Amino acid sequence: MELASLKGAFEAGQRRYVAEWRQLLSFPSVSTDPAHERDCLDCADWLVEHISRLGFNAQRLETTGKPVVFGERPGAPDKPAVLFYGHYDVQPADPLEAWTTPPFEPQLRGGRMYARGAQDNKGQLFAALKAVETLVEGDALDCTLKIIIEGEEESGSQGISSALERWREQLRADILMVGDTGTVSSGAPTIIMGLRGAVHLTVSLTGPTHDLHSGTHGGRAPNPAEGMACLVGRLRDATTGRIAVGKFYDQVRPPSREERELANAHDGDEASYRAETGVPSMGGEREFTPTERVGFRPSLDINGIHTGYDGAGMKTIIPSVARAKITARLVPDQDPAACLANIIRHLQDHTPEGLELRVDEQGALGPGFRLDLGSPLIRKAKAVLDQLDDRETAFLWEGASVPVVSSLAQVSGAEPLLVGFGSEQDRIHAPDESFSLDQFSLDYLYTALMLTSL
Amino acid sequence: MELASLKGAFEAGQRRYVAEWRQLLSFPSVSTDPAHERDCLDCADWLVEHISRLGFNAQRLETTGKPVVFGERPGAPDKPAVLFYGHYDVQPADPLEAWTTPPFEPQLRGGRMYARGAQDNKGQLFAALKAVETLVEGDALDCTLKIIIEGEEESGSQGISSALERWREQLRADILMVGDTGTVSSGAPTIIMGLRGAVHLTVSLTGPTHDLHSGTHGGRAPNPAEGMACLVGRLRDATTGRIAVGKFYDQVRPPSREERELANAHDGDEASYRAETGVPSMGGEREFTPTERVGFRPSLDINGIHTGYDGAGMKTIIPSVARAKITARLVPDQDPAACLANIIRHLQDHTPEGLELRVDEQGALGPGFRLDLGSPLIRKAKAVLDQLDDRETAFLWEGASVPVVSSLAQVSGAEPLLVGFGSEQDRIHAPDESFSLDQFSLDYLYTALMLTSL
Repeated sequence: MELASLKGAFEAGQRRYVAEWRQLLSFPSVSTDPAHERDCLDCADWLVEHISRLGFNAQRLETTGKPVVFGERPGAPDKPAVLFYGHYDVQPADPLEAWTTPPFEPQLRGGRMYARGAQDNKGQLFAALKAVETLVEGDALDCTLKIIIEGEEESGSQGISSALERWREQLRADILMVGDTGTVSSGAPTIIMGLRGAVHLTVSLTGPTHDLHSGTHGGRAPNPAEGMACLVGRLRDATTGRIAVGKFYDQVRPPSREERELANAHDGDEASYRAETGVPSMGGEREFTPTERVGFRPSLDINGIHTGYDGAGMKTIIPSVARAKITARLVPDQDPAACLANIIRHLQDHTPEGLELRVDEQGALGPGFRLDLGSPLIRKAKAVLDQLDDRETAFLWEGASVPVVSSLAQVSGAEPLLVGFGSEQDRIHAPDESFSLDQFSLDYLYTALMLTSL
Repeated sequence: MELASLKGAFEAGQRRYVAEWRQLLSFPSVSTDPAHERDCLDCADWLVEHISRLGFNAQRLETTGKPVVFGERPGAPDKPAVLFYGHYDVQPADPLEAWTTPPFEPQLRGGRMYARGAQDNKGQLFAALKAVETLVEGDALDCTLKIIIEGEEESGSQGISSALERWREQLRADILMVGDTGTVSSGAPTIIMGLRGAVHLTVSLTGPTHDLHSGTHGGRAPNPAEGMACLVGRLRDATTGRIAVGKFYDQVRPPSREERELANAHDGDEASYRAETGVPSMGGEREFTPTERVGFRPSLDINGIHTGYDGAGMKTIIPSVARAKITARLVPDQDPAACLANIIRHLQDHTPEGLELRVDEQGALGPGFRLDLGSPLIRKAKAVLDQLDDRETAFLWEGASVPVVSSLAQVSGAEPLLVGFGSEQDRIHAPDESFSLDQFSLDYLYTALMLTSL
């Protein structure tokens, strides 16, 4: 189909798309929280039914974790088979009080849909599904299309990952389309050339068997709150910004000169970064540009510390326990398991005397990967994007992780293609997440054009 | 009155004492939490009525904060006037789930009363009031007795402190009896020879205007959780245990050789400290004994850190803000205001780039003080304690603060006398706080004997 008729189709369907999208967003499918188990299953069932109605053979594939939604529609044998990936689970919505409207009661304000998952990934996913619908209805989808939508992207993708090998035949494809990414800060169309991997862990430091009076014991009892601060506050060198964990950088693959140049070409300016986030680009390693740090270097972040009193006024205690949550982002060719082990060993080696370290939870979200700048598929995607936008297509090495992408590529034998329309303004993972109808429409047009150009 | 008849009186009254004590403990008079404002006032009113019934001219004295309960009963002109101090407010009860029975539903189990405030200070205070009652009823109280019970000891004593000057005439006395302290770890009768002062503050570090995705921004955005860890994790030197704040030790008054020897004589052994608290005596400055660190040296403790995610699983964010609560304990002749200013300056000087420090709350709980070992009053108290216990009376330089005591001593012109019967087992400020009937009875007997021996 041509761009003009696609635009007309979108115009005609838009009101219905929004109504259906709202339904999808109203499921609180928070995969990390067991309290939302039922909501995740309901969301999966809704998608199976929806995809069936698009003319796909759709079903729920059970895993050891949340089920995967899978749909398949055979095409012409001489056309490539496309595997499309998305996820129906979302991040937790807390802090709830920071939302303007409730996270699971989607509201359209000023051309943007506000809800948890509005962008990540239900918005991007649903725009693509609507494009597929338009092609099917216009009899314009001639390639084989397989749709796989998992329910644990935000919590480690373990269910899908452990089942992939079993589904190898079903998933076989030539191209793996992934729409869970964003654009460079200018908003220009963007092809993602790499993603980081990640590992995560929750640790606790225990000290006294009960909270102690900080007068009677101050200067005598070791303090887990202070101990945790020392421990996690020294995971990076304060001067260089380098991660202080031993062997952490040993396997890091440096970027080529071309990769480095293309990446730095789209480094947003400092002023707009500050305007978007409220902070300067001061984190990470001093010796690299902000773009290089995010795209080509591993990072380590404390996601939470909780210990002692947080109410009004003061409470003069030495708390009995302190907890911290930590994630590290990895680049090729770092091995997730080895990195996790190195971090844990570092924490053990630096645990303050008198306190006890416990690793409460740990996991790997897969390794990082980088794509090949010279691939014909990448060039075709660039041509499609050139039709939709006057601006030069950007090549971006993402800092985020879509852990299952590299496993999916490996199992399906497909070449990954990562194009998405998220922007910093969408505030994914944070309160007031949103996705604009303009972004939704671009995503729809790109997906339709790409599928028909193969 | 003689010891034998006092013991008889206690025996006869015990059942009623416990019933009344339960009533006092059932008020959730948490002064630091505005939600308990009404409970504090109700508790004060209950005490005014109770003290009136003992034959005192009692009233609520209003302050800028919680009211003070004041009662007075004139005695023989040739007898000394005694000012008795206690407090009716208590620490917050959280974490509630850690209590065996609810904190404000007092329960007597195995000879111990369990409730928030069971010891600190409602238990010790009420035992003394019952001793006074016995003396009044036995026509044996011949000295002038003034009772002052404040409602903000656990939150800075600001109301009483700001009103003291106004009440100078009313408070004039010769002896200031304070029953808000404990015994050495062996449980031997104990005279407190010093208390530490304290300052407290709540600080926050703000970074991004909203929680950021730790993949997209990890290595680029400064992380307030990590920044707070660095900031508060470096307030003490990890090797020496010394507080790293500039000028912090400048005014610290060293103990005399006699003070040091008497203090170290009652240093509990390491095994029982570990059994009581669950930790070794590893905190604080390496070059001092645990007893010296608590009695003669200042300390600094992190009472709480709260930032980011604390739910199940992981949440891959760079949190937007981190909060920490800090207290420092001070010894003579450290000036609280100067110490607070020095801590704040240190935090400001070490605030990581890209993050913003805010002091949300700060306050001083008065300076530390030390009493004179040669005083006749101290010797008289020792003689009374020798009657009650075969063991040698211990002299203890306490690590805790009763901030208002030094101000009260100064305004009233009275010599302080600090004898209390708290023990580590009572778990004050923690879940399952308790006070045994044996402790209650000793407190009763000591107060009665002391008042009649003057």
